[in-house]
Amino acid sequence: MSARALPQKIEINSDMGEAFGRWQLGPDEELMKYIDVANVACGFHASDPVTLHKTVKLAKKYNVAVGAHPGFPDLAGFGRRRMELTEEEVADIITYQIGALKAFCDLEGVPLNHVKPHGALYFYLKNSRSHCEAAYKAIKPLGVPVYGLGGTVHEEVAKELGIAFVPELFVDIEYSKEGALIPPAQSKKITPQESAERARKVAETGNNYAQGGGEVNMPEFGHADNGGKCKPFSICIHSDLPGAESRAAETRKTVDELNAKMFPGA
Amino acid sequence: MSARALPQKIEINSDMGEAFGRWQLGPDEELMKYIDVANVACGFHASDPVTLHKTVKLAKKYNVAVGAHPGFPDLAGFGRRRMELTEEEVADIITYQIGALKAFCDLEGVPLNHVKPHGALYFYLKNSRSHCEAAYKAIKPLGVPVYGLGGTVHEEVAKELGIAFVPELFVDIEYSKEGALIPPAQSKKITPQESAERARKVAETGNNYAQGGGEVNMPEFGHADNGGKCKPFSICIHSDLPGAESRAAETRKTVDELNAKMFPGA
Amino acid sequence: MSARALPQKIEINSDMGEAFGRWQLGPDEELMKYIDVANVACGFHASDPVTLHKTVKLAKKYNVAVGAHPGFPDLAGFGRRRMELTEEEVADIITYQIGALKAFCDLEGVPLNHVKPHGALYFYLKNSRSHCEAAYKAIKPLGVPVYGLGGTVHEEVAKELGIAFVPELFVDIEYSKEGALIPPAQSKKITPQESAERARKVAETGNNYAQGGGEVNMPEFGHADNGGKCKPFSICIHSDLPGAESRAAETRKTVDELNAKMFPGA
Amino acid sequence: MSARALPQKIEINSDMGEAFGRWQLGPDEELMKYIDVANVACGFHASDPVTLHKTVKLAKKYNVAVGAHPGFPDLAGFGRRRMELTEEEVADIITYQIGALKAFCDLEGVPLNHVKPHGALYFYLKNSRSHCEAAYKAIKPLGVPVYGLGGTVHEEVAKELGIAFVPELFVDIEYSKEGALIPPAQSKKITPQESAERARKVAETGNNYAQGGGEVNMPEFGHADNGGKCKPFSICIHSDLPGAESRAAETRKTVDELNAKMFPGA
Repeated sequence: MSARALPQKIEINSDMGEAFGRWQLGPDEELMKYIDVANVACGFHASDPVTLHKTVKLAKKYNVAVGAHPGFPDLAGFGRRRMELTEEEVADIITYQIGALKAFCDLEGVPLNHVKPHGALYFYLKNSRSHCEAAYKAIKPLGVPVYGLGGTVHEEVAKELGIAFVPELFVDIEYSKEGALIPPAQSKKITPQESAERARKVAETGNNYAQGGGEVNMPEFGHADNGGKCKPFSICIHSDLPGAESRAAETRKTVDELNAKMFPGA
Repeated sequence: MSARALPQKIEINSDMGEAFGRWQLGPDEELMKYIDVANVACGFHASDPVTLHKTVKLAKKYNVAVGAHPGFPDLAGFGRRRMELTEEEVADIITYQIGALKAFCDLEGVPLNHVKPHGALYFYLKNSRSHCEAAYKAIKPLGVPVYGLGGTVHEEVAKELGIAFVPELFVDIEYSKEGALIPPAQSKKITPQESAERARKVAETGNNYAQGGGEVNMPEFGHADNGGKCKPFSICIHSDLPGAESRAAETRKTVDELNAKMFPGA
Repeated sequence: MSARALPQKIEINSDMGEAFGRWQLGPDEELMKYIDVANVACGFHASDPVTLHKTVKLAKKYNVAVGAHPGFPDLAGFGRRRMELTEEEVADIITYQIGALKAFCDLEGVPLNHVKPHGALYFYLKNSRSHCEAAYKAIKPLGVPVYGLGGTVHEEVAKELGIAFVPELFVDIEYSKEGALIPPAQSKKITPQESAERARKVAETGNNYAQGGGEVNMPEFGHADNGGKCKPFSICIHSDLPGAESRAAETRKTVDELNAKMFPGA
Repeated sequence: MSARALPQKIEINSDMGEAFGRWQLGPDEELMKYIDVANVACGFHASDPVTLHKTVKLAKKYNVAVGAHPGFPDLAGFGRRRMELTEEEVADIITYQIGALKAFCDLEGVPLNHVKPHGALYFYLKNSRSHCEAAYKAIKPLGVPVYGLGGTVHEEVAKELGIAFVPELFVDIEYSKEGALIPPAQSKKITPQESAERARKVAETGNNYAQGGGEVNMPEFGHADNGGKCKPFSICIHSDLPGAESRAAETRKTVDELNAKMFPGA
């Protein structure tokens, strides 16, 4: 059982604090106005102690929940290059990074909201159950949910270990017909209106548009086993894609409408 | 007020977990048998997540208290090269590193015992009151003591901020006539018996041997204002100097004798 | 004697290739159109192997000369935080970084033009003659000039060691009345027209505007001992200050005019 | 065609300079007495500028040839964790590292002898022809041979690109019946005498002992197509395995005997 209640409606998350020293990335403050939840980089794929502190303070200012976004130890590769780490290494780099973030949360009086592994680490856990188990076991004592890809090893291992799980929908990149995420570089550009429309479509029908035409069913958002209604989930907007701010703004409006209609009391 | 009581007698601390990946350093497990307190490297001047985890488990196995040993972000220089960081940067690198260590302490059910800045950072704080204040303000909410050089800015700032302070005595390197620590490279080699003898001399008389002959008074250990008896303090044994194990063993015996005599109830 | 002839007229240099992995910095390609010489970051304060290679190719495309821009090993601090390295360490980090850059120059058939230490390292050498000597001795066998601050230890050590020296004028930040460079954060914003005007003023009169009013004489550009005419020198335009492109464009026009008039055969 | 002649007899190589800052690794100076060729770490998986310089000077002192030993950018993993880099990234990290080493070679007047990729990068190139081609194309202009696993993609790509190739024999770890190298952790301990015996066996018969009993033929050392005699090759002794020095000493004696007999004029 998680110490933190799961989201009660549809929310928007975004990766925040991915600057590094002199280098900026993404319109963090602009996006904070539109999102519910920040996945805060912890210093291994991006960020540094000063940036971490600033990002936690910024999230606090905008009343945005703060989660840990641990990545591979690869600044030059932004955590997007798969690294063959052992289960022990994966668990320990995650513990380390969450601890670093949590120290700033404690200092600022902000609770830790969740853990969402970043980039290649996110997919590494999806593709190796033993690594996913090692990672999630390190997370479990914190009593916060993990964010991940519903219907995959992410969700299976969370259930197996009794960890709360929040499925993510990406609305600014495409999915294949089989439901696999398309990397940004291979995905077509998605307008703000299209992002909002994808959020609506999945929330209302449980289906999404597939790359190249046609649709893909997304059972992880709960339609089938929830009387034709979606369950609460989290929408991820990439903060580092061009147009992120407009996409977040447009999707925010749609999510607010959907929530008012679908989760009226939440 | 500190959440953790100060030491009630003389104790021995040592820097632990200063391996890095493939590279080992110091006879950690041998030393754990003789020390009370481990200053655990946090990944900036030495260590990595797997080493950190192992070191916390090793300290737990030997019932050795675990403190944070944050350093400058300079692995190649082992945190021994002064870096001109701002007050904000110093505070944030310390928060980050303590958090990382604390995550492993939490996982292993070990309380955080203290914070002792490492190497050039230790002296940076001693030499800049504004940096020391920034650093200690980041440490204060944790409710643990800082370890430092008594009678210097370290102790002054700790008192000013209401942080518990533990003065350190180094018994394996020399002090100047003015009471300044001599860097290991400029210090004569000190035998295990001499280390133990230095511990005894300071505990019993408040004086230490000075480099080049003569003695240096060390008021920070409390003789003058404690009725001619020393107050509890912490003895640091460098884990990376040759002969560390013998020095720790010999000093342990002497410290146990001193404690039995001077702090009988503790 | 240097294997590379010194510049025969006034030229413009700019720091290039200061991206790092996912993070961009500065309008490199836009600036390449206006400059003569690129100081290419070598991976310690900024850049990475892929960025280095791209930057050398970009300079080659625009026929811009390529120099090494070695810095302190401090990506998080962008090489702008003073680090207390030994003379040996300073010499060896410079050799290492030049070698890394030179490998890409060799691959692309571009000669190494010069060496200009970056950021805090530039000033470290200015403030410590022994470090400057160690650094320049490592550079000397390459037979290329060093760029530095005329009339300081930079120039003195270059002369002493028989290394060609190119004095730099900064036209986008202020100088104190004593001729010291003002850090960007304490300097007033300088418009493109003012940058060009500073280049002209120094070239024509040997004087520059001083912070707070009045003028500062700059003997390093040679007026006094050159019959009232300046000698060739290099103008540095910061690539990472807002407005760098306009400033480079405007200064380029003025430098071309000055060169046509003052160094007609060059 | 290579600017450097291939070895004319059997030689011994070893990885050298794998210290990092404060941390030592391997008995470099002791091994230098027994080897012909040093594979010098270049700062990505191990080493730093000062260590690099010292290692080149040490090799020079013992008249040992100096080759580049570039690795993955992963100090914490010692370059032994596979990283999914693109072809461009692999080529550029190799160019960067060779350049860094070559700068110290130039300073010390030592020619670059060869390139041997390290650890996981060595096997990455063996397992991906496109990465191997990208890497070797970056090496080719240097006119030095690559060291690698004979009969694999290493040798095939070297031939395809017209790069001189030196096949390596490992005598301190086992081979499978199929001729694949067994990682040190899964390999039985091999005594100095056994190492020497393996060198002799391969040189004289073209066969090696296989893990678990039996033998494995090693056509890459040339027996079959060289009239029943081996061609010159290079024996690698791991410098970081316990007992390296004795193993090098014993193998040296045997190699000298073999060379006297088999390559009398070389």
